[in-house]
Amino acid sequence: MGRVYNFSAGPAVLPEEVLAEAAAEMLDYRGVGMSVMEMSHRSKPFAEIIETAEADLRELIGIPDNYKVLFLQGGASQQFAAVPMNLMRNRVADYIITGSWAKKAWKEGKIYGDARAIASSEDETFSYIPDCSDLPISEDADYVYICENNTIYGTKFHTLPNTKGKDLVADVSSCFLSEPVDITKYAVMYGGAQKNIGPAGVVIDIIREDLITDDVLEGTPTMLKWKTQADADSLYNTPPAYGIYICGKVFKWLKDQGGLEAIGKRNEEKAAILYDYLDQSKLFKGTVRKEDRSLMNVPFVTGSDELDAAFVAEAKEAGLVNLKGHRSVGGMRASIYNAMPKAGVEKLVEFMDGFEKAHA
Amino acid sequence: MGRVYNFSAGPAVLPEEVLAEAAAEMLDYRGVGMSVMEMSHRSKPFAEIIETAEADLRELIGIPDNYKVLFLQGGASQQFAAVPMNLMRNRVADYIITGSWAKKAWKEGKIYGDARAIASSEDETFSYIPDCSDLPISEDADYVYICENNTIYGTKFHTLPNTKGKDLVADVSSCFLSEPVDITKYAVMYGGAQKNIGPAGVVIDIIREDLITDDVLEGTPTMLKWKTQADADSLYNTPPAYGIYICGKVFKWLKDQGGLEAIGKRNEEKAAILYDYLDQSKLFKGTVRKEDRSLMNVPFVTGSDELDAAFVAEAKEAGLVNLKGHRSVGGMRASIYNAMPKAGVEKLVEFMDGFEKAHA
Repeated sequence: MGRVYNFSAGPAVLPEEVLAEAAAEMLDYRGVGMSVMEMSHRSKPFAEIIETAEADLRELIGIPDNYKVLFLQGGASQQFAAVPMNLMRNRVADYIITGSWAKKAWKEGKIYGDARAIASSEDETFSYIPDCSDLPISEDADYVYICENNTIYGTKFHTLPNTKGKDLVADVSSCFLSEPVDITKYAVMYGGAQKNIGPAGVVIDIIREDLITDDVLEGTPTMLKWKTQADADSLYNTPPAYGIYICGKVFKWLKDQGGLEAIGKRNEEKAAILYDYLDQSKLFKGTVRKEDRSLMNVPFVTGSDELDAAFVAEAKEAGLVNLKGHRSVGGMRASIYNAMPKAGVEKLVEFMDGFEKAHA
Repeated sequence: MGRVYNFSAGPAVLPEEVLAEAAAEMLDYRGVGMSVMEMSHRSKPFAEIIETAEADLRELIGIPDNYKVLFLQGGASQQFAAVPMNLMRNRVADYIITGSWAKKAWKEGKIYGDARAIASSEDETFSYIPDCSDLPISEDADYVYICENNTIYGTKFHTLPNTKGKDLVADVSSCFLSEPVDITKYAVMYGGAQKNIGPAGVVIDIIREDLITDDVLEGTPTMLKWKTQADADSLYNTPPAYGIYICGKVFKWLKDQGGLEAIGKRNEEKAAILYDYLDQSKLFKGTVRKEDRSLMNVPFVTGSDELDAAFVAEAKEAGLVNLKGHRSVGGMRASIYNAMPKAGVEKLVEFMDGFEKAHA
């Protein structure tokens, strides 16, 4: 068969144009006579690739000069340790627990100090975002931590928490570059590339410069110290070069789409098609409190395990793949990242509607 | 122009067949309807990719069941910290300093305990391997550490050190899979993929099982604890999936070439072409003590900075690229990894000979 509509939560769909370009350049990158995979990371063509990627990312988000952009490895899971190792000078930090990934980050934080869970939505299977307007922020907290979009549960912080002046650290893996964002509200924003940005194996950190220092926790590995890579423009050692190259192509593609304003509008339209259908469906039901719904990850259920399974199987036959929900929520989940075309969402809703009628 | 002969020290040349296959599969991996970059790491096709890669690697080296194979991130530089964090129970380790990378590993080891430099060849710009038959191995050493092939200096341990019963840990980044190896002589063998195995962003650890425990140093990040990934078959979090896929293709290619016996023989032949020429040349001179020469990285000089620069520039024009030596040795360096065809080495020697005659 041809290309399917891939609703995977991550690694996830990438723009077809990006993949086609990468394929065409695989044996010979623009007349250099070799693949990007074979290039020294100190070579001129690669320097241009990584510098252009950073410049385009800065332009897309509007990153001011007092923020550093780092291309790192190890995924968000490794930043769960890097964040406290680089920031926990008072050995206190506040975590808002809105899902499994926030919880993992919190547990990792506890290795290094007093990581406090100051709010949680675990009581209702993380199906909402807690009220964060007046939380008991710790007076000596080094930072307040959130996972901004919760891939598994389909929630998103549409309003950032009131951190009462403390630095905000956000894992944005599953909503990176999905809409315009005011980076100055964040001290650290980071995310794994493999959902909205590129292949697995790249994590991008955007860090306010004053937080990048030698004053890290004792025992911090050189590679986890942000200053190591900041001083070397992400080239302290060999970076995940091919992944960065693909990310760079995605940044260009996002610019071609009109930038984050346009992308955000398109993502709202795409999500509305699915949520509007869910809200009137007699068979399918969204699992998330309406005001906290993610534009990227949309979980839904029928209420029957057999029907859920039948739906996932039949959808796959129809070229709509990876719709099985995460085991902790059950049912289905459609991840509709930047690269998922509107036509894919329309086809999904059409298929859901047909399934609903067949099972009425 | 077409493909060049790429003598880069890493990232480095990959087999053209591997790249061509990857290009052909970029938009649709074997009828799955998506790229490997877009695949969930929990999906069946990816499970098959990583399991086949591991099985082929085990077959190539002959890895017994009591060794685990891990596909990790962060390069060798991150393992410089992971090694002591996972192994330094007595807080003592012995390092043999044969180049910049061994030295970096040693310095990183000192963050975690008493890392002792028990031998060094720094006195002669690391141009030889010290006699390691009777070293002052520390009685309470948790391990003895070497960098087996020194990319920058072009030396290799042709005999492993006598560790007097202590566990041997070896960084084999630049000689990985270049010849047959008895893995049972090592406690830990690891290497970055970007020289002989695949793209940057993957590091492969082969670890004797009894060394993979929860008994790690306090403060070890979950992602640096080997047991985390060992328990999860390298899928604790999203792995560098596309890189692993390319590594897997290279393993298949190595098997097609006849395995490590055949590859080792070919690498000896290739290196001999270059070393034999150097040994009779009146212009070019190898920089390494003969008995310690690497099969992979061959540094050489003319003795004149201007001639060196002219050589590098003219070679590039002739399609022989990335021959500039590392600044700490100067001159030239030809990295002739597995994927460098014999024809590439022959062309290099032919070019050197022509250059020598022109400058006689």
